[in-house]
Amino acid sequence: MGTVMTERLVVIGADAAGMTAASQARRRNRQLDVVAFEKTGFASYAACGEPYYISGEVDPIDKLIARTPEQFAKAGIDLRLRHEVMAIDLDRRVVEVRNHDDDTTSETGFDTLLIATGARAFVPPMPGADLEGVHTLRTLGDAEALRSVAEAGLGSIVIVGAGYIGIEVAEAFEARGWTVTLVEALPSIMARTLDADLSVGVVEAIERRNVRVLTGVMVERIEGDGRVSGVRAGGQSIDADVVVLAVGGRPVSELAGEAGIELGASGAIVVDDHQLTSAEGVWSAGDCAEVRHRVTGEMVNLHLGTVANKTGRIAGINMTGGDASFPGVLATAITRFHDLEVSVTGVRPEDAEAAGIDAVVATVGGLTAAHYMPDASDMTIRLTVQRGTGTILGAQIVGGPGAGKRIDVFASAIWQGMTATDLEWVDFAYAPPFAPVWDLMAIAARKAAAAARK
Amino acid sequence: MGTVMTERLVVIGADAAGMTAASQARRRNRQLDVVAFEKTGFASYAACGEPYYISGEVDPIDKLIARTPEQFAKAGIDLRLRHEVMAIDLDRRVVEVRNHDDDTTSETGFDTLLIATGARAFVPPMPGADLEGVHTLRTLGDAEALRSVAEAGLGSIVIVGAGYIGIEVAEAFEARGWTVTLVEALPSIMARTLDADLSVGVVEAIERRNVRVLTGVMVERIEGDGRVSGVRAGGQSIDADVVVLAVGGRPVSELAGEAGIELGASGAIVVDDHQLTSAEGVWSAGDCAEVRHRVTGEMVNLHLGTVANKTGRIAGINMTGGDASFPGVLATAITRFHDLEVSVTGVRPEDAEAAGIDAVVATVGGLTAAHYMPDASDMTIRLTVQRGTGTILGAQIVGGPGAGKRIDVFASAIWQGMTATDLEWVDFAYAPPFAPVWDLMAIAARKAAAAARK
Repeated sequence: MGTVMTERLVVIGADAAGMTAASQARRRNRQLDVVAFEKTGFASYAACGEPYYISGEVDPIDKLIARTPEQFAKAGIDLRLRHEVMAIDLDRRVVEVRNHDDDTTSETGFDTLLIATGARAFVPPMPGADLEGVHTLRTLGDAEALRSVAEAGLGSIVIVGAGYIGIEVAEAFEARGWTVTLVEALPSIMARTLDADLSVGVVEAIERRNVRVLTGVMVERIEGDGRVSGVRAGGQSIDADVVVLAVGGRPVSELAGEAGIELGASGAIVVDDHQLTSAEGVWSAGDCAEVRHRVTGEMVNLHLGTVANKTGRIAGINMTGGDASFPGVLATAITRFHDLEVSVTGVRPEDAEAAGIDAVVATVGGLTAAHYMPDASDMTIRLTVQRGTGTILGAQIVGGPGAGKRIDVFASAIWQGMTATDLEWVDFAYAPPFAPVWDLMAIAARKAAAAARK
Repeated sequence: MGTVMTERLVVIGADAAGMTAASQARRRNRQLDVVAFEKTGFASYAACGEPYYISGEVDPIDKLIARTPEQFAKAGIDLRLRHEVMAIDLDRRVVEVRNHDDDTTSETGFDTLLIATGARAFVPPMPGADLEGVHTLRTLGDAEALRSVAEAGLGSIVIVGAGYIGIEVAEAFEARGWTVTLVEALPSIMARTLDADLSVGVVEAIERRNVRVLTGVMVERIEGDGRVSGVRAGGQSIDADVVVLAVGGRPVSELAGEAGIELGASGAIVVDDHQLTSAEGVWSAGDCAEVRHRVTGEMVNLHLGTVANKTGRIAGINMTGGDASFPGVLATAITRFHDLEVSVTGVRPEDAEAAGIDAVVATVGGLTAAHYMPDASDMTIRLTVQRGTGTILGAQIVGGPGAGKRIDVFASAIWQGMTATDLEWVDFAYAPPFAPVWDLMAIAARKAAAAARK
């Protein structure tokens, strides 16, 4: 044995944030000993692709796995699946690891620790939530289970929660011919990011595919005897062979909290802009950590693949002596239901007001292409801008093919502090298949600039 | 008769720029007497939609007409079709107008004059260019003629010039089953805006549809006896029942030049940022006028529907006592050949160098969607950035559905002076059908930032 002490990085949680950080760190320091513990049997998978695996669009499931343990081994990363970190001892700088294959427990020392424990699906405390046939969708194992269900034959599914995942699961089962009901407790679908009036068109698109949408309806209990048979919601019973609970996620931060690492109001791990936690040499990234919202300046907890990858990259740089700051998020998100696209970025007026910013909105309707083109489809854009200055704070888009990714223009504009007046005159690309001569983005900006001046 | 003298605005040329200006002016001043002279039988039409009328995607042709003379009359605008302005007398402040319906000539006085004479298709001085069956595509009349040809039966068409219009006409005739040959004198297609290596993929897409593409081949003459029978190009003869000359346009500025109004090096009318020409009370907008390129600062002449509409709007505001500056162009453009999209904005290194800006490029290849999605397609992005600062100066994109309109993000970034480093971390929208978790735009920005630092 030589006398060179090799530094060890231990990564807890081997998904997007953890493995991005591990890979980045190893690329920057070839001497680094990197061990990643993952409690499930899957690592480095694309959770956002799961609905498309359930629908059958993606096949086989391996396509959702970015890199295998063998590939990580070649990159010098010791990835151990079915190894769960049970405790972190900051004084002794060791983690206690349970090997679920042979049911043994051991300790592994670390010099640097990355906590990337992610998030779990929230299971509301409701009677029947533990019945057979009640699912959540988070891990690849969850996706496998739902695909098996979907392929076993036709039936009725009730999806509780009409956010992004709920709607994507609805699309997947509807495409397979199932009888689908979406039940949302809030007065409108996607209510945490999309205004109620804009959601009306989304509901219509969903209902056109014979998916039943119930909003403002609380699920009281899941019914069944051993196995689910229905859902009791808003005083009515809905038959269900399968139930999916899609009511959001919670950061997995207990391990960090128990080790004395500071947690924020969101329940997620507090980090600075370098992804460093309150403990020396302990970093965190991904769904389990907070991030700064660029518009409000507030620390928030988001469960987005983009944020996990980006914060993982930042952590990987900084853990190996680099100096990179994570510049924050706008909470940009996008989804589709068949041909209808929905995207959001930044804030809505109520979020702005809560952060002390006086905001106004402007809404415009138009088309994705020149009006005479056969595939032109409807699109609505709503902008939130600061009163007076017209600085763009947020955008919501609902529309046909090509509508959704226009949100990136607004994300760039908010990122850079552009005003609506700046954006109004930007030289956007025009040809009849792609936009009207005045892209609706410019018209939205013009109207928002006028609203800001009032 | 009262004693109130009504002010009169005369508009020469009743297409996008002229009628946008006329409408804007009338909206701002309801007392204004507005007369618009248009030498052809069509006004206010969408020239960019013509290829899709020829292909049959758009039908009938009326769909390409934004507003009819009757609609303009209702808006208080006296639009006179088949009235050609033959001369402008700046001293007497009258225009001489030829009525092509009754072959009479008369004078009309003006207080304010807008010259929006547009551009004409360039017909190269080549033997046979005047044969029957040789077309250009600019006016709605041109489009009608080509549609008649396309519908009359199958045949062979040679398109001279593989720019945007040439490629769109190729798509239209190929879709109808014609034998199509594109002949381009420059070494690559779309060479004025797209780098040669990036054009290779476009050529492949065109050739996959059995359109023959000849580059670096000069057309020597058009052959035929009365009627076209072929094209002699690069020492070979190509059979042709129809020839389309698509080698660009020229500003129609003779009328202005003869009246003593200053023309620029481009041959187009010189205007300030308010669209005012060198003559008091005489304004110009659209294809016949110069515009300032925001990156190089140079005055250029572009024939784009967006620019015509925008400069028309600016002229309309300023002619009626307003104060609006046209903020310039990035020469953003987009087209498609079936599923392949091509878009550009800003400058390439050679343009930057010519303007005294030291520039470097970065090129990245990737996908339009998550790799496991069945409709993910290839996309290439090339960025031009300033050496040192990394300020984004230009972008070129070639890729499948969803690739092209990403150019708007770069247009917004260039507009606002963003650097590649700024853009790298922008919170772009991600979901598997829309992008990989790192959108290729961010990867392009990262690579460009690194190139700028070298």
